[in-house]
Formats: sequence, structure tokens, C-alpha cells
Amino acid sequence: MDFAPSERTQALAARLARFMREEIAPAETSYAAAMTGSADHRAWQQPAIMETLKQKARAAGLWNLFLPATEQGAGLANVDYAPLAEIMGHSFMAPEVFNCSAPDTGNMEVLHRYGTPGQRERWLKPLLAGEIRSGFGMTEPEVASSDATNMRATARIDGQHVVLDGRKWWTTGAGHPHCRFVIFMGLSDAQAAPHRRHTMVICPLDATGVKIERMLPVFHGYDEPSGHAEISFTQVRLPLEHVILGAGRGFEIAQGRLGPGRIHHCMRAIGAAERALSLLCKRAVSRVAFGKPLAELGGNADIVANLRIAIEQARLLTLKTAWTLDTHGTKAALSLISQIKVVVPAVAQQAADAAIQIHGGAGLSDDFPLTQLFAYARVLRLADGPDEVHRNVVARHEIKAQQHHMESSP
Amino acid sequence: MDFAPSERTQALAARLARFMREEIAPAETSYAAAMTGSADHRAWQQPAIMETLKQKARAAGLWNLFLPATEQGAGLANVDYAPLAEIMGHSFMAPEVFNCSAPDTGNMEVLHRYGTPGQRERWLKPLLAGEIRSGFGMTEPEVASSDATNMRATARIDGQHVVLDGRKWWTTGAGHPHCRFVIFMGLSDAQAAPHRRHTMVICPLDATGVKIERMLPVFHGYDEPSGHAEISFTQVRLPLEHVILGAGRGFEIAQGRLGPGRIHHCMRAIGAAERALSLLCKRAVSRVAFGKPLAELGGNADIVANLRIAIEQARLLTLKTAWTLDTHGTKAALSLISQIKVVVPAVAQQAADAAIQIHGGAGLSDDFPLTQLFAYARVLRLADGPDEVHRNVVARHEIKAQQHHMESSP
Amino acid sequence: MDFAPSERTQALAARLARFMREEIAPAETSYAAAMTGSADHRAWQQPAIMETLKQKARAAGLWNLFLPATEQGAGLANVDYAPLAEIMGHSFMAPEVFNCSAPDTGNMEVLHRYGTPGQRERWLKPLLAGEIRSGFGMTEPEVASSDATNMRATARIDGQHVVLDGRKWWTTGAGHPHCRFVIFMGLSDAQAAPHRRHTMVICPLDATGVKIERMLPVFHGYDEPSGHAEISFTQVRLPLEHVILGAGRGFEIAQGRLGPGRIHHCMRAIGAAERALSLLCKRAVSRVAFGKPLAELGGNADIVANLRIAIEQARLLTLKTAWTLDTHGTKAALSLISQIKVVVPAVAQQAADAAIQIHGGAGLSDDFPLTQLFAYARVLRLADGPDEVHRNVVARHEIKAQQHHMESSP
Amino acid sequence: MDFAPSERTQALAARLARFMREEIAPAETSYAAAMTGSADHRAWQQPAIMETLKQKARAAGLWNLFLPATEQGAGLANVDYAPLAEIMGHSFMAPEVFNCSAPDTGNMEVLHRYGTPGQRERWLKPLLAGEIRSGFGMTEPEVASSDATNMRATARIDGQHVVLDGRKWWTTGAGHPHCRFVIFMGLSDAQAAPHRRHTMVICPLDATGVKIERMLPVFHGYDEPSGHAEISFTQVRLPLEHVILGAGRGFEIAQGRLGPGRIHHCMRAIGAAERALSLLCKRAVSRVAFGKPLAELGGNADIVANLRIAIEQARLLTLKTAWTLDTHGTKAALSLISQIKVVVPAVAQQAADAAIQIHGGAGLSDDFPLTQLFAYARVLRLADGPDEVHRNVVARHEIKAQQHHMESSP
Repeated sequence: MDFAPSERTQALAARLARFMREEIAPAETSYAAAMTGSADHRAWQQPAIMETLKQKARAAGLWNLFLPATEQGAGLANVDYAPLAEIMGHSFMAPEVFNCSAPDTGNMEVLHRYGTPGQRERWLKPLLAGEIRSGFGMTEPEVASSDATNMRATARIDGQHVVLDGRKWWTTGAGHPHCRFVIFMGLSDAQAAPHRRHTMVICPLDATGVKIERMLPVFHGYDEPSGHAEISFTQVRLPLEHVILGAGRGFEIAQGRLGPGRIHHCMRAIGAAERALSLLCKRAVSRVAFGKPLAELGGNADIVANLRIAIEQARLLTLKTAWTLDTHGTKAALSLISQIKVVVPAVAQQAADAAIQIHGGAGLSDDFPLTQLFAYARVLRLADGPDEVHRNVVARHEIKAQQHHMESSP
Repeated sequence: MDFAPSERTQALAARLARFMREEIAPAETSYAAAMTGSADHRAWQQPAIMETLKQKARAAGLWNLFLPATEQGAGLANVDYAPLAEIMGHSFMAPEVFNCSAPDTGNMEVLHRYGTPGQRERWLKPLLAGEIRSGFGMTEPEVASSDATNMRATARIDGQHVVLDGRKWWTTGAGHPHCRFVIFMGLSDAQAAPHRRHTMVICPLDATGVKIERMLPVFHGYDEPSGHAEISFTQVRLPLEHVILGAGRGFEIAQGRLGPGRIHHCMRAIGAAERALSLLCKRAVSRVAFGKPLAELGGNADIVANLRIAIEQARLLTLKTAWTLDTHGTKAALSLISQIKVVVPAVAQQAADAAIQIHGGAGLSDDFPLTQLFAYARVLRLADGPDEVHRNVVARHEIKAQQHHMESSP
Repeated sequence: MDFAPSERTQALAARLARFMREEIAPAETSYAAAMTGSADHRAWQQPAIMETLKQKARAAGLWNLFLPATEQGAGLANVDYAPLAEIMGHSFMAPEVFNCSAPDTGNMEVLHRYGTPGQRERWLKPLLAGEIRSGFGMTEPEVASSDATNMRATARIDGQHVVLDGRKWWTTGAGHPHCRFVIFMGLSDAQAAPHRRHTMVICPLDATGVKIERMLPVFHGYDEPSGHAEISFTQVRLPLEHVILGAGRGFEIAQGRLGPGRIHHCMRAIGAAERALSLLCKRAVSRVAFGKPLAELGGNADIVANLRIAIEQARLLTLKTAWTLDTHGTKAALSLISQIKVVVPAVAQQAADAAIQIHGGAGLSDDFPLTQLFAYARVLRLADGPDEVHRNVVARHEIKAQQHHMESSP
Repeated sequence: MDFAPSERTQALAARLARFMREEIAPAETSYAAAMTGSADHRAWQQPAIMETLKQKARAAGLWNLFLPATEQGAGLANVDYAPLAEIMGHSFMAPEVFNCSAPDTGNMEVLHRYGTPGQRERWLKPLLAGEIRSGFGMTEPEVASSDATNMRATARIDGQHVVLDGRKWWTTGAGHPHCRFVIFMGLSDAQAAPHRRHTMVICPLDATGVKIERMLPVFHGYDEPSGHAEISFTQVRLPLEHVILGAGRGFEIAQGRLGPGRIHHCMRAIGAAERALSLLCKRAVSRVAFGKPLAELGGNADIVANLRIAIEQARLLTLKTAWTLDTHGTKAALSLISQIKVVVPAVAQQAADAAIQIHGGAGLSDDFPLTQLFAYARVLRLADGPDEVHRNVVARHEIKAQQHHMESSP
């Protein structure tokens, strides 16, 4: 057992942290100030600094670190990438700077693993180059999407075409000026076996019949310039070559996509939690009430201790999940993936809430990134399946394992 | 012991609930849609429907219900007004419709109890008539305002004038188009006994030297058209007749103001919690996953039960606090006032969070008022003193009471 | 609305508290020291002081206060008795002293309401006089008794006799030297409508076929000299006059019995929680570490405040439940009865746990009654239905009420 | 980073688990039945099976696994021993069988690291051979021992002797028939620098002036045949060779002793938590209510999931602590040691409480080891420093680290 990160990870982490400190931190305020606050994503623009930073990051070899492939990516295992994702999680700008944003990383993995050469050339290549961005269309407004079999949107195969119909929402990234396509998941054969019914399709945003209906606010904020879109698809007819892997193989892809995706999300959320704790401590030692710094008053030390313990545990669980995925594969990691999905966003929310509290009114305003950290964590408790679904996965695995153990014991 | 509301309260509650259902509920969507979302309060306007509703409410005798005075108000004790405030808490529009908004109710009580005839004529009368609105300037950006002795703004007596200097923030209501003055609290004599150092002054918003620096967002929202302002006061020179009760009597007024104010806040927050629970249940019975309504899945029934229990307890504690204040006075109610200040906003936050969760992504968007309910509850955990300060008050009272009890027992 | 106890309750409470302080408190240590610690209830004896105290209590008019009947009891409504039960809850000796012990109070109510004149003469009269004690046999070892329909024991009507077979456990009080009978509930007609299948029977402990198999420990303690028994019933043949109310009416009786019974339990548990908090505070002000009394260290003040708030809320909810039962009847009180059943034992457990913690090792030993208070609260989370069942009742009522409300709103 | 245990640990774990299953599990019931339940430790005897099992364990090479020394012990690092300690934690008998009981392991480490050859020959050798057992006397009844500087017992150097006076309690193991000595810590020089004031002394239990005053119950149980003793020391005069390391070096030894000791405790507690969860699941799938196994009812799946997540995280944190201690030394591990001390016993208590709840009344009785598991976890929240002290350590480290980080960042 060895809790030390690999030497390569340590070296990358040091360079990444330095880049964060020297290049990104100084740009954050002006970047945030350039946001329009508009509900209309067509008004959104990305400050030029982003392209500058992306070029610097690429030049510094801090690019596509998420991709395990050695040719196009950094060749890092999940457990090696995880601490780097955590560092990126300290800043809302950072993932894009390093071309490691959600949902693009998941989409790139999908195209890398399941895409045809043509799909890779047309869609993966510019994604890897950071020239375009992408979305993922799974959740739907009219049904409880926690149960994926509720999905109503259709991806009907019609000869040499696939026809998309339906409505998706919470398609993160679709408001970005660079967003060019979404991976759309729809029902293609309602009669097939349950996990053979759905198909994933690359749908260009400018295809006829695709309409961004609106951007969805999260606690009144729009996560500009990426945004979360509600998109209608009306008889969107696309050549079959837009189908990924083949009709009816949507769940197979989804399964493969989710593991690393969730781990990345969780590691970034650990970074967000650390940032909240760091801001909390900074405030606690610098503000004085009743003659003492807040850090020495009442139960504030307990709050700091409990957060430190919770974050440390959540991080270790996430690292073990990454290691299990790397070492024993997706199936062995299923319960763990659900475990971190439950625990990490909750810890990040708790950290942000505590940090808000110690900042007083300032914590609720935009003077600090705390409500943004809070909203990010809060979204994660729903994205990729709500807590309730994941707890259920964990419980079923546990009960099964215990029953197996009972039967195998004399 | 009698848990039934008085007959008068029951009658008023029935009429109020009907007014809410028939007049306010239908207006909510268009009212909300008229909000600009702008950070600049000068762009804010109030839809005309508000004046219409106010006139109807006044005509229906549902006006100034908060004021215990029989002449200008409804003559209701706090315990009788509390269930009415709760009903108003179901809608963000409602308090203004019935002229029962914070911080105006607190300000009206102050002017009613401590104002000179001239102050009452000039400021209280139009407030009672719903013609103007007002703010309250206590919290400051540069110090931990949880400790009131940290206050830096000054209200210096200079002959026949009082001169205000400093910066206040979280002055709720100051962005409202009708807002005409704030009650400003400042240090007037740093050498006096600790609770004789501060003075309260009626400061017109159009006085020379008063500047609204900005509106403060709460989770990116501005609570338009009331808003929370940061205001600078630079050598604001006002005739002495703007001082309330007399120099050095600010804490005395603050003490008297806070009891009912906090109880009103808490009762409205109970209403907010009930609304969240009601939306939660509605969603839980109407959405289906895995073949069942959400209400029948996993731990969702426990969530409903725990919220019902928590809300019911919080309501009873608030009613008892109101009754104690009415029956035994402020001093006897001090611990209870702090108790509800700790418990009610937390319950409301918990209810809103749970309701968001069961709504999935929709809960985070503006399609439901849940993030607004959440933000309202979250603000209340800081407004009028953070939880930490109030828990400390409760603990000190408890320890003292227990020690007294130990000593008096044989 | 009026939170003041009735004048009669206030007067009784004052006398009761004085009796507790002057008569019971001084006897507690020697009474506890007389316990044998034996697992064999036949070794148990009750110190003579108990009879002395009972006579004094009776002489002082502090006797059978629980019984609403004016002739045999005190004629107090539940809401009036509740504060008295709370006072008794401060001492494990007290309920017996005042003839207000569980399960006797419930049994006396049953016999008073449903018993024949013969049953009342033979069993109720000596119970009311404090000459004998009784048990209640509902829970069974071999099935999940949280679902009452699981009940396997039988009470078969055979001509002029009823024949009992089966095994009951957690029959509280059956180890008491004075215990003479248990009320046994069994299946009499498996084909009848679900709530007409069971029958309640007065079963003398000395009837042929009744055997106390063992006393059940709770955290290694036996609650001597009452105890919790496991009892086997083997072809126990009793004349029909031992049946209460009639065959098949067991659930009807159980329903009527449970309301007041649970309220009494909860009020006593509030008293237990208060005692734990009182011991906690006493220790917190008298022990010094790091130069300060524990009360002033870290989060200890928060612990005190949170307990005060939790206990106060739990008390109010219990009082409201009592008032609702008195005023609107059992059906209107059903959800509330389940609510207090969930919340009060949990608060008492939390108070006892916190008090143990602040006492350090001493809190775990018998030097303080804290583990006993803890065990008492812990048992209550299971007795009369586990938390889970009660939360489910609350949720079902809530969902139903909300649906009704939705449908009745325009 | 590597989450796989070493090959040696895996092999030992497999053998240990098999020994637990085949040798210890079958002996548990009769062993437990042989306990007297007496408060008087002189009545306690250890069933002969223990010596038989010890011999088998020793023969199987499962002996003194805790000791990192390669000659006398197994030569395992803490991180390698930890999973083995966890396995032992499943049974209360196991640690003694493998000669890995507290407080003996800590005492053996102390004697191994700091003992003179004479001390090792006389005391360590028989401990390592499992021939005798030992206690540790630190906590005192009359002061808040959470603050070690409160210690009042004295170890006065008087020429060639050391003289012990004072009273210790919670000396675990002192009731064991084989216990021969306790390591006593006392004040030797009140004028010295704070951490040079105390001395550790090997005090034979049969020395003149040593008196076991009583055994202390924990939730009415005595942890027979080890027990927790209150011991008075009255002018116990011992030759100087009983002093360990030298006068005034008590804290130095205590510091070195605590790290591994706490880690061992925590790993065993993880095992206890796993056992509770395992019993919980077994019951949940085998008991039926309302037509379903309990596992499928209401929030029970959430309880299982939350426990699995909590235990997994607590285990990882403990392993990382062990690894840090092994790799970077005590100082680097200080915060982590306090972190696991806070989190692990709490998780174990939570698991035991949840398991009790799902077992209903049976869970409170001795039919299952659940109250014993609960009591074990509850004790650990106080032993070796209460949660409060450890949270404070964690907070201080965190604040310091954050301040360091702030200052070192540009």
C-alpha cells in the first residue's frame, strides 16, 4: 500500500499548481467581470485571455492530461490524473485552460474509444486541439431522468439516416461560443432488450431542427460562458455516420463513459471543497469579534476540523475508486463510483455552506466565489444521477456482497 | 394550555389565505417575469399590479396586521399575528401587499414606540399608508458585525446637527423605487458605557453625502425590486430632529425592535418551509421512476416525515416565543428569540434543499421558486446575527438558569 | 393560544417537584444500591422505602395522576398530566412512587375503559391501589413485530375458554415482585378482517402454562426490579371472562391504549433529557481543562444550546399532541403521536450521549445515571413501534393531507 | 499510489481470517457464557479455551503481529499490520488470542523501545510470550484528564526509589487474572518545563500500597475478564529501576506510544463497525415486515449505503495515517492520528446503533453482540483523549498549514 502519488504526478502537480498561481489566479477577476449576466447565451463571449492561457498551457505540456491514451493524451491512469483534476477544481476557469472541461473530457473519451476514424477526424481532433467544445444530451425535462428507462427522446433509424426527436435539458456547455455538437442519446428500439434500446448520436448544433430553447439558471447564475441548455430536437435527420458504435449501443457507451467522468467531477469537487476551506480559514484568522479571531470562537475550530476530516476521507475514497477502475476495471469499481458520487458533492456543499457562514453577508455576495462553489456542488448532487440513485446502487452491492459472504462462510 | 389560535386570528387567517389564493397566486408569474435581473437598481420598477393588490388588501382589512397598536394597526398580539405572517411567507410578493414587509415593520414599530410626533407625521404616516418604504443600516462591510461593538460608522452630534459617516451594507429594501429613508445606527460617543455609545438616526436617502454604492447579490439574485444595498455616508449632516429617542440610545431601541422583528422573520420562514414541503410532496406524487411515484421510493417518505416534524416543532417554538414576548416581555423571551433564530432558518433551508433534490435539475432553475426559498432561508441564518451568536446567547442563558437552579436546590 | 399550564397543573407540578426533591432524590442512591444485578428476577426484591414513598405520595394526593377519570384518578386531561409526567421522568424511581408506571398506566386505562365490572374489581382495583403490577404482551421474538400482522401467538376461543399459545418478549414489568398478570394479545381468527383477528386477554402470571423464560438485558442492565421478560405461553386455558371487550377486538383496544401511553412515555423522556442536560451543565461548569471550565471550551456551548432548543421543541410538540388528543380525539392526533414517538426518544438519546461525553469515563460508569438514561431513550426508539414505522405514518398522513389540499385548491 | 495490501499482509490476512472463522467463532458463545457478570474481578476466570487458542495462534505464526521489530515481532509496518488488526476487531476474544490486546501492545512497544535490558527481561519477555498482561494508568477520577497537565498523581523521586501516590481509573486490563503490572504516569517535578514534569513507572500490581478499588462498568458491563479498574496508589515505594527512560520523560514516551496505539484501536474499531454492518445486513435480508425483507423497506437501503461509505472512508483514512506514520514519522502524522480518533469510533458507534435499530428489541439484548460493539465504540470516543481534544488538534494543524500556505503564496 502506498499513498504517495507517482513521481510523474508529483511533477505535473507542481507545474500545474504554479501555472494556476501565476497565470490563472491573476486573470480570474477580470475574466469574471467580463461575464454579461445575460440569460441569452448569444450575448456571451469569452474573454481573449482564455485563448492565451490555453496556448500557454499547451506549450507547457499541461494539455489533455485527462486522456489515458499516450498518443493524444498524457497517458495518465485515472489515479494519476485525479490529483491534477483536484488542482484544476480550485478555479472555475482552469479546466478549460487545460482542455479538461466537462463534458468534453467524457465526450473525447467516448470518441477515442468508440468513434470511427471519420468521427475522430471530424469531431475528436478539434476537441483535442481545444478548437471546439461539445455537450451531452441525456436528461429530459418531462420525466424523472434518475430512471434512465424513462427517456422519451427518440433516435429512430430510417434507412441511411437517424432521426432525432425530443427535448433535452441540462446540456452543459451548449451555450459556449465554441460549442459545435452534442452527443444525443435517444430511444431507437422500444422492443429491444432494456439495455439495447438506446442509441448515441453526434448531433451538430447547427443541424436543421436543433434549437436551443433557453439557458437554465442555477441559483440564478448561468455558468457563463458554458451554460446549461434546454434544447429541442425536431425531426433532426442525420446520416448514419453520426451514430456512435451502432444502433442500440447507447447504454454500453454510457457505462464506459461514466466511470472516469464521475471521478473527474469528484476530484474537481474535492478541489472546490479545499478552496472553500481555504477561504474559510483565511477569513477565520483575519476577522475579529468579541476580541478574538473568529477561528478561536465557539465551535469554529470544530467546523474546520470536521471539514478537514471529511475532505481528506472523500479524497482518499475518490483516489481508491480511480485506482480500482484502473486496476480492476469498471465492474469492480461500480459501487465505489456511486459512493464518491454521494459523498464528494455533499462534502463540497457542506464546505461551501460553512465558508459562507463564516464570511457573513459577504459570503452570499459575489465578492467571494462561495455561492458559485456552493452551486457547483449542489448541481453535482443531481448531475449524473441524484444521490438517491447512487445510494441505492451502493446498498444493492453491499447486500449482495454480504449475502455472498454469508453463503460462502461455513 | 391551549394550542388553538384565537377566533380573530382564525378568521383573519381564512381571509388572508383566500386573498393569497385568489389575488396573489395568479399574479406571481407575471410579477416575477417583470423583474429585470439587472444589478443596477435604478432600472428596477415595480409592476402596477402591486398597487392594485395593496389597495384591495387595505380595503379587505388585511393591512398593517403586524402592528399591535389598535389605532394604526390591527391590535394583534405577536402570538396572534404570527400565523398570519406565516401565511404571507408562502409568497415573496405577499408581505408588501399587506404592508407587512421587512424591514418596514420593524421601522414602523420603532417610530411608533420611540418617534416624536414630528417623526411620526413625516415618516411613520406614509409608511403605514404604504406610500413609501424604508431601510435599516446596521451591518458594515469592514468588520465582523456579529459583534455589534465592532461598529465603525459614526453619528457624531455637532450642535444642532448629527453628522453621519461610514459604510453600511445589507440594507434590505434600499433598492426599492419607493424607499425614502434608512434608519442609520452609528457610534456617537466612544467613551460612554458600552450600551450608551450608539445613536439611531433617520437618514433620508436623498440627503447630501448618501450614496448607494451597489446592490448586493444573494446567490446571484438581487431580490428585486427591494434589494440589499451597500451605502456610503460621507459627512451627511442632518438636523438633530432626525435622531430617534436621543443620542446614545441606539442599543435600547435595537433591543426593543429585534424581538418582534425576528419573530416575524421566523414566522414567514415557517411559511417558506411549508411551501417548499408542499412543492416537494406535489413533485413526489406526480413523478414516476422505476415504476413508482417518487414518494414511495427509498428514503423519500422519511424525508417528508422528518420535514413535517421539524417544521411543526419550529412553528410551535416560534409561537411560544411570541406568546412569551407578549405575556412576559422581552427579557423573558431573549433565549427563545435566539432559539428560533437558530432553528427556523435552518429548517427552511433544509426543506428547500430537500425540495430541490426531489425536483432534480428543475429545482435548481427558475421554473420553481425553490432556489429563491433556499436563498431566503440562507440569508436568514446570517441576518440579525449569525447562528453562532444566537447559540451562544442560548447557552449562556441555559448555563445561568442551571446554576441558579443548582444553588436554589437544597 | 396559551402556553401557560393550567393553574391546577402548576400547583400539582410544584408539589410534585418538591416531593421529588425532598423525598425521592435522597432515597435514590440507597435504592439503586439495593439492586442485585442478577439476571434472575426471582432474586429481585424491592427496597421497603418504595412502599413508604407510595404511602406518602398517596397521602399527598399525588397518586394516579395519569387517569383522566375523576373518580379513581385525578381527572386531568393529557395536556394537564403531561408536565407532571415530565417531572416524574427525572427519576427512575418516581413513576412507581406515584403509581404512574408503564405499562400499568396503559393497562389501567384499558381496564377502566373496556373492562367488565368483574375485571375492574379483580384487576383494576388493586392496580389503582398500587398493590399489584402488570405487564403487556405484544412483541414476539420470532417475527418483525414492527408489522403487527406478523403476530404468531394465538388466543383461540374454545367454548367457554380462551387458550393462549406462543411466546412474547419485552414484556416490561413482568419481573417485578408484585406483577400478577399480563395483558396478552393473540390471533384468534386468522380469517377475519385484518383488524378483527386479534384478541386481548388478561393472563395471570401464575396460570398453568405461563413461564417466564428469562429477563432480557438492555445494554447489560435489567431495569431491576421491573425487568423485561421473555414469556412462553403453552396451552394456557382461561375462562372467557379473561377476554377484554370481546374476541377480535384487540386492535380496537390497542389503538385506544397507545395514544396516551405514548404521550406519557414521551413526557417522561423529556424529563430524562432535561436531567441529562442538567447533569451536563453541572459538569461543564465544575470541571476545568486548559484553564477554563468545560462550558467555555470549543463547541461545548453549542452543544448546550442545541440541546436546549431540541428539548424545548420536543416538549412543545408533545404538549400539542396531548392537547390535540384531548380536544380533537385519537384520529386527529395520529400523525402527531407518531411524530413525538420519533423525535422525543432521539432527543433524549442525544442529550444522554452528550452528557456522557462531557463526563468522560465517569459518564460511562454507574457513578452517574447517564448510561441508564441513554438505555431508557434507546429502548424507546424501539418500544411501541420503531422510528421507521412511525416516520412512515407521518409521511403517509402528510402526503394525503397535501394531496387533499391540492385537490381542494382551485 | 497503490491501494493493494502487500503480499505478506494479504497472506497473513487470509490465514488470520481462516483462524477467526475456524477456531475463534466456534468458541465465542461458550466463552461469553463463562463470564460471571460479577462486579468483583476476583471472581473472574478465563475459560481454558483461551490458552488453547493462544498456543494454536502462536504455532500458526499469528502471534505478536503488531510489533514492528523483526526479532520479537512480525516485522510489519503499521500500514501492513492495520488490515490484520481490523480482522481481529471482529471478535472481542481475538486480540488476546493473537497477543495483540490493548493496552499490552502499547506497553510492549514502550518497553521494547525505551526499556532497559533488565526491564525487558522481567516484563517484556513474559508479555511477548503471552504469559502475563498489563495495564496503563493515566486517567484520573478527580480532574478533567482531557487536559494532561491536570494530572495530580505523583511519582516522586526519593534517592534510589520512586514513590507513587494518587488515584487512577479506566486502567483497562487490570482486572485480568494474568495482569501483573501497570505503567503508571505521575508528576515528578512540578517546577520543570511542562513536558518534562512527568515520569512513567512500571508498578507491579502486588506492590505494597497498590489497591484495586473497584471495576468500572461501561453501560453496566465489565468487559470481563479484562475490566477497567480504579486503582489507588498509597506511598508505593519502588526501586528506581522501575522508572522507564528516566525521570521527567513521561510525555516523551506517551507521545511515541500513542500513534501506533491509536491506529491499532481504530483498525479494530473498523472491524467492529464491519461486524455491525454485517449483522445489520443479515437481519435486513432475513426478517420480513409488510410483505418485504426489511432491506427493501423505506430508508433501510440508505442506511446500508451510508454505513458502507462511512466505513470505507474511515478505513482509508486510518490506513493513510498508518502509512504516514511509517513513512514520515510521528510528527507528520499527528493531525491524521487525531482525525481517525475522531472519525472511526463515531462511525463504529453509528454502525452499532443502526444495527441495534434493525434488530429491534433483540439488538438491545445479549442475543447479539451489538450493545457490546456499541459500548466498545462509545468508550473509544473518550479513551486516549475525547473527540473534542482531537478535533482541536486537527483544527490547529489546519489553521497553521493554511496560514503557512497563505504566507508562502505570492
